Amino acid sequence: MSEKRPVVIDLRFARESVVSALRSAFKDRPVIDMGDPANADRDLSDAEFAVVWKPDPALFQRASGLKVIFSGGAGVDHILSAYELPDLPIVRFVDRSLTDRMSEWVVWQCLHHLRNGIAYAGQQRDRIWHEISEQPEARDVTVGVMGLGVLGADAVRKLKIMGFDVIGWSRRSKVIDGIATFDAAGLDTFLGRTDILVGLLPLTDDTRGIYDRALFSKLRRTGPLGAPVFLNAGRGGSQKESELIECLTDGTLKAASLDVFEKEPLVGESPLWSMPNVVVTPHAAAASDVRALLRHVEAQIARLEAGEPLEFVVDRTSGY
Amino acid sequence: MSEKRPVVIDLRFARESVVSALRSAFKDRPVIDMGDPANADRDLSDAEFAVVWKPDPALFQRASGLKVIFSGGAGVDHILSAYELPDLPIVRFVDRSLTDRMSEWVVWQCLHHLRNGIAYAGQQRDRIWHEISEQPEARDVTVGVMGLGVLGADAVRKLKIMGFDVIGWSRRSKVIDGIATFDAAGLDTFLGRTDILVGLLPLTDDTRGIYDRALFSKLRRTGPLGAPVFLNAGRGGSQKESELIECLTDGTLKAASLDVFEKEPLVGESPLWSMPNVVVTPHAAAASDVRALLRHVEAQIARLEAGEPLEFVVDRTSGY
Ligand SMILES: NC(=O)c1ccc[n+]([C@@H]2O[C@H](COP(=O)([O-])OP(=O)(O)OC[C@H]3O[C@@H](n4cnc5c(N)ncnc54)[C@H](OP(=O)(O)O)[C@@H]3O)[C@@H](O)[C@H]2O)c1
Ligand SMILES: NC(=O)c1ccc[n+]([C@@H]2O[C@H](COP(=O)([O-])OP(=O)(O)OC[C@H]3O[C@@H](n4cnc5c(N)ncnc54)[C@H](OP(=O)(O)O)[C@@H]3O)[C@@H](O)[C@H]2O)c1
Repeated sequence: MSEKRPVVIDLRFARESVVSALRSAFKDRPVIDMGDPANADRDLSDAEFAVVWKPDPALFQRASGLKVIFSGGAGVDHILSAYELPDLPIVRFVDRSLTDRMSEWVVWQCLHHLRNGIAYAGQQRDRIWHEISEQPEARDVTVGVMGLGVLGADAVRKLKIMGFDVIGWSRRSKVIDGIATFDAAGLDTFLGRTDILVGLLPLTDDTRGIYDRALFSKLRRTGPLGAPVFLNAGRGGSQKESELIECLTDGTLKAASLDVFEKEPLVGESPLWSMPNVVVTPHAAAASDVRALLRHVEAQIARLEAGEPLEFVVDRTSGY
Repeated sequence: MSEKRPVVIDLRFARESVVSALRSAFKDRPVIDMGDPANADRDLSDAEFAVVWKPDPALFQRASGLKVIFSGGAGVDHILSAYELPDLPIVRFVDRSLTDRMSEWVVWQCLHHLRNGIAYAGQQRDRIWHEISEQPEARDVTVGVMGLGVLGADAVRKLKIMGFDVIGWSRRSKVIDGIATFDAAGLDTFLGRTDILVGLLPLTDDTRGIYDRALFSKLRRTGPLGAPVFLNAGRGGSQKESELIECLTDGTLKAASLDVFEKEPLVGESPLWSMPNVVVTPHAAAASDVRALLRHVEAQIARLEAGEPLEFVVDRTSGY
């Protein structure tokens, strides 16, 4: 073993995926895997790097010598909101595979609503052969994507190729080919043009509870789907779930596809499970591939050791 | 009204869609709409063109002066297989909107199977929060498209952009950028590499019953979905439905999405309606937009009258 200082791993993912990914990672550096009970009381003060997903709250006190914290996911709300964090660079996870998977989920669910997937499943259950007339084409439907970061930018590109009319919204204004974009000040205009709203925002102080009745009421009501549809694959904390449920009940929203929830796992009593106009997936839109995550961490550590700046460092002020 | 000879319309589509589209079509030419009972016994011998979808079998005898027959859909099996047809050019329907809609359906259903749509719907019904591990990415899954015509060529392009590994099969060999293609002789190799088989073939003597147990047994069994998946949006006559049902029951196939059936409407007693691994849509993948259809007919008539050759003329020998 080299004299390199250890990397501490505290990833609350499926255990086998972590164990198997660790087998081929960090060949030149000691690894402290907090998933191994033998490490429960180990001195962590020598650890130089931490790779974490919803880690033990005590970790950052115990690992007092850290230089960088790596988030196990694209989002960092799981650490920023829950801990007194040391003033260290936090690097989030950006990866082609994560991005591709998210776009798969977004395009899949936009097509599901465009192509009457819920209604056709109901007809199949009832053995009804009936072609739903007034089937709009993708180009007749405007998908409005909130969040034009790594994930949003890829999703809008693919939605566009599938034929949708696509618009986007982000904090700072952006130029994206073929897509009308809006910044913070343009929110109401953006909403008023949107038939399918796709949430790909990080959870921050500014985005907490942003998807509420007031926002849903501003979506276009005269679009070809009859009423607006809401998709959220960002973070559940951005949705006011009680208002969302009301809007899905009173027709303010036609339907929703939700991958994220205020509280996860979604509680068994939530009406969302059984609402006929809701698709629930269990925070599975874009799971981190642990192997890819560790490759990304190794690459960033290599940059650091070569004197290059870290990439994907979180801005602690804006919270993402 | 000009002295132009009439066009006879016998389109068994939703009546309102035909009436409404006719309102703005054929401004310079008499129209005989067979959907209007007043025309039931009208002399049709003066009609020059016919636009038909599953027309009255007597139509082609009565309209003895026809110059061209226009099919109301992309497929022509509805007339070629059912009638003694006069020896006239048959023009099929090719249209951007039809093509886009078909690719919507194909990409939607490929993503539905890739992303465990059936399993997640079941978990939602049972209020089970469980992320299915081993979620392959699109690039890990090979979609094999049978039929690389107008529809197949667009579908492979969009599947590729969504990340799938895509291969294709057609009668004559083709070169398509980024996609391995196979001709008639390469069928077994093509099938042996395919995880999701997409049927976009026309119904002809050669393709009748082509999707049978022997074919399904040649699909790749070691792919990341566990077992092969079958999609058919071409024609139901190409599938041996009893063998398809057996293969979906005994595990030869993992799942299927079917838009077309041997007999349509699909009979109420068909087990396909209630099979947990089958998605049924009622021949709705790519409905002809009647307005677009009549625009296409007008454009072809204009070509003819300008001395240009008709486009999209069916080869009566190959049957498509
Ligand atoms: N469901 C899942 O499986 C899953 C998987 C991965 C990630 N996620 C979630 O997806 C989120 C987005 O990921 P990403 O990689 O695309 O993040 P990112 O690259 O940081 O992009 C975030 C985007 O949101 C915008 N934004 C942030 N705060 C805003 C505000 N207050 N008003 C308007 N726009 C705001 C940003 O605007 P600027 O461009 O102006 O900065 C940026 O366009 C992650 O934070 C995570 O929570 C979910
Ligand atoms: N479900 C729906 O709503 C819906 C809507 C529209 C159309 N359709 C169906 O989709 C079919 C395809 O439409 P399209 O416009 O793409 O037709 P197309 O342009 O004529 O293409 C047909 C393709 O099938 C291939 N093919 C035909 N016979 C074959 C055989 N015996 N062996 C191998 N390949 C064969 C052709 O090969 P070559 O390239 O070598 O000629 C061609 O690539 C239509 O015929 C129709 O039945 C269904």
